[in-house]
Amino acid sequence: MPIRHGVFDTPAFMPVGTQGSIKGVLPDHVAATGSQCVLANTYHLMLRPGERTVAELGGLHRFMGWNGPILTDSGGFQVFSMSDLNKITDQGVTFKSHVDGSLVHLDPKRSMEVQNALGADIIMAFDECPAAAAPQEYHFMAVERTLRWAAECIEHHQRQSDQSLFGIVQGGTDFALRERCARALVEMDFPGYAVGGLAVGEGFEAMKGVLKASTPMLPAEKPRYLMGVGFPRDIAAAVAAGIDMFDCVLPTRNGRNAYAFTGDGAIRLRNSQYTADGGPIEPGCDCYACRTFTRGAIRHFFFAGEMLGPILVSVHNIRFFQRFMADVRRAIGDGAFGRFLENDPRCRLGPGAKDDVPDLRPEQAADVVRDR
Amino acid sequence: MPIRHGVFDTPAFMPVGTQGSIKGVLPDHVAATGSQCVLANTYHLMLRPGERTVAELGGLHRFMGWNGPILTDSGGFQVFSMSDLNKITDQGVTFKSHVDGSLVHLDPKRSMEVQNALGADIIMAFDECPAAAAPQEYHFMAVERTLRWAAECIEHHQRQSDQSLFGIVQGGTDFALRERCARALVEMDFPGYAVGGLAVGEGFEAMKGVLKASTPMLPAEKPRYLMGVGFPRDIAAAVAAGIDMFDCVLPTRNGRNAYAFTGDGAIRLRNSQYTADGGPIEPGCDCYACRTFTRGAIRHFFFAGEMLGPILVSVHNIRFFQRFMADVRRAIGDGAFGRFLENDPRCRLGPGAKDDVPDLRPEQAADVVRDR
Repeated sequence: MPIRHGVFDTPAFMPVGTQGSIKGVLPDHVAATGSQCVLANTYHLMLRPGERTVAELGGLHRFMGWNGPILTDSGGFQVFSMSDLNKITDQGVTFKSHVDGSLVHLDPKRSMEVQNALGADIIMAFDECPAAAAPQEYHFMAVERTLRWAAECIEHHQRQSDQSLFGIVQGGTDFALRERCARALVEMDFPGYAVGGLAVGEGFEAMKGVLKASTPMLPAEKPRYLMGVGFPRDIAAAVAAGIDMFDCVLPTRNGRNAYAFTGDGAIRLRNSQYTADGGPIEPGCDCYACRTFTRGAIRHFFFAGEMLGPILVSVHNIRFFQRFMADVRRAIGDGAFGRFLENDPRCRLGPGAKDDVPDLRPEQAADVVRDR
Repeated sequence: MPIRHGVFDTPAFMPVGTQGSIKGVLPDHVAATGSQCVLANTYHLMLRPGERTVAELGGLHRFMGWNGPILTDSGGFQVFSMSDLNKITDQGVTFKSHVDGSLVHLDPKRSMEVQNALGADIIMAFDECPAAAAPQEYHFMAVERTLRWAAECIEHHQRQSDQSLFGIVQGGTDFALRERCARALVEMDFPGYAVGGLAVGEGFEAMKGVLKASTPMLPAEKPRYLMGVGFPRDIAAAVAAGIDMFDCVLPTRNGRNAYAFTGDGAIRLRNSQYTADGGPIEPGCDCYACRTFTRGAIRHFFFAGEMLGPILVSVHNIRFFQRFMADVRRAIGDGAFGRFLENDPRCRLGPGAKDDVPDLRPEQAADVVRDR
């Protein structure tokens, strides 16, 4: 699998640069967190500034100020998550641009055209991603469409030599359907595979079941990517199932809301208990925020509306995820991942505890969907 | 003059960290611009989070994540710029907190108490700063009060051994009054002196006249600081008059509004002409923004509402000011400052040209006052 801009260690966590920037974090600080590969969203960039503008400006790496590997998604997830906005047929999807309200069409050919123009190292096939709760027949039809579209993506992909196109397994929580989709994709011989349609409300146990059904069908010698996941708990379970790559907006989105990840669970830095707290966000953390600022100062920045609040907690949270991934890789290298999974408290960090996820107002929930 | 946290080169430009942060710029990037000393605002920090909280958190250096020298103003300028909010008597000023609406009192003793608690290396005497257009008699009375308050500040300053207290020359545009104020302050033997009450609408020529009247009265072997100034043109003229220190919110405020300083004048990066511009903000600039991002990408970040837009242009603008100061110092060292002043186009960069200063909406103008 060609990676023009260098290799990265797996299992890998990719921070999300939705519109071409990891929100609030300059690339040197992204790199300092240990991030090696980052993600950007085709949907957002095709609408603004447009993929041709990105290409004219020297391509996505130059655009983002990031010389390491980049992955772009297909645009499908964002389109399908705004189902009131779109018309889906076998010929693709028509939706209203959230930027200027114009009608935009996206299909496998167009997704490839956009992703070829952006120029990421890894690009994704255009798939249909139904809600977890969609009827069984719908999931069945969506898999048919996803497979047909995957073949069309291969056909229209113009930069096979320097962009690796990954196929995406769909099928909801129907294990047999997942298996069927995975097998069919493997026959198309992609350089890598993703499991999509998870972390959309199906629950932790269902996710593990789907991974158990899908991952063994995908060749172990090729990268396997679980899209949009997740909490450390989810990542640990997915690594156990054989997943190599992850992306999620959690570190930056929670960071912007003053929620910081720590090994003991999430803390909310707006809480008054941190007003005069002279310690770092997380004792023992080596990130720039923890080395440089107190919890009390960061709390102040949030209340004073200073950008440094969101920036610093985002930096810490990304570093938290990258320290976790480094420990996962070390445990695997030591042949001790089973023990790690059982004993490391981070492997139980999920959305359960009250403080773990901010209560989202509806407009924020929409942001989340758009961010993914 | 003691500077606990190291020395800095003069003439110096200090970026402004109003509420304890140079807006959007992490301290390592502030340092990378060549900034050696930064400013923070007593008025803002005493209201939020409160000087005792800053002290509990380890003092202002720890709070800001800045180990170099810091200067705090007295709080006076912000209070006096919001004249509808305050009652001024010889006993000090009473004003409404913009944070919680409570009534707050500030006087020389309290200003010293707050600045001693914050712990900056250089602190300022509490002065009265009338509008330039105030009647002559008012300026006369304000100077009397400023001198009385200056003596009170010396009396109440509790950290003489590690904080240098500067006196402030007032007197509006009455040269004789300025001279009188300067002479009286020098008799009090401060470790440094500031010229206040400028850049408040008096105009460039009046400012030069005031500096010509004030600066020669102030001992050349002690630092002389022109508060709240300004454009490169103003700085160059003030250096010619003997000024050693400057601070201004222009680089960061204009940066947040997409206005970038260049040697050829200001450019507005939101303009459509930069959409596909693959060059740096300013060709030849060595700042992080210019080394890493294209004009087109930065324009996109502004339109997409990404923090990186304001951050990158702020970084560039601060570096622009610091490159200018480095060239000023070099010219002085070479004994060629007169030629520099005459020939370097930056020495004519003022608020004249249409693009140089954003049109401020009223609420933004209020921000400017609060920021100073």
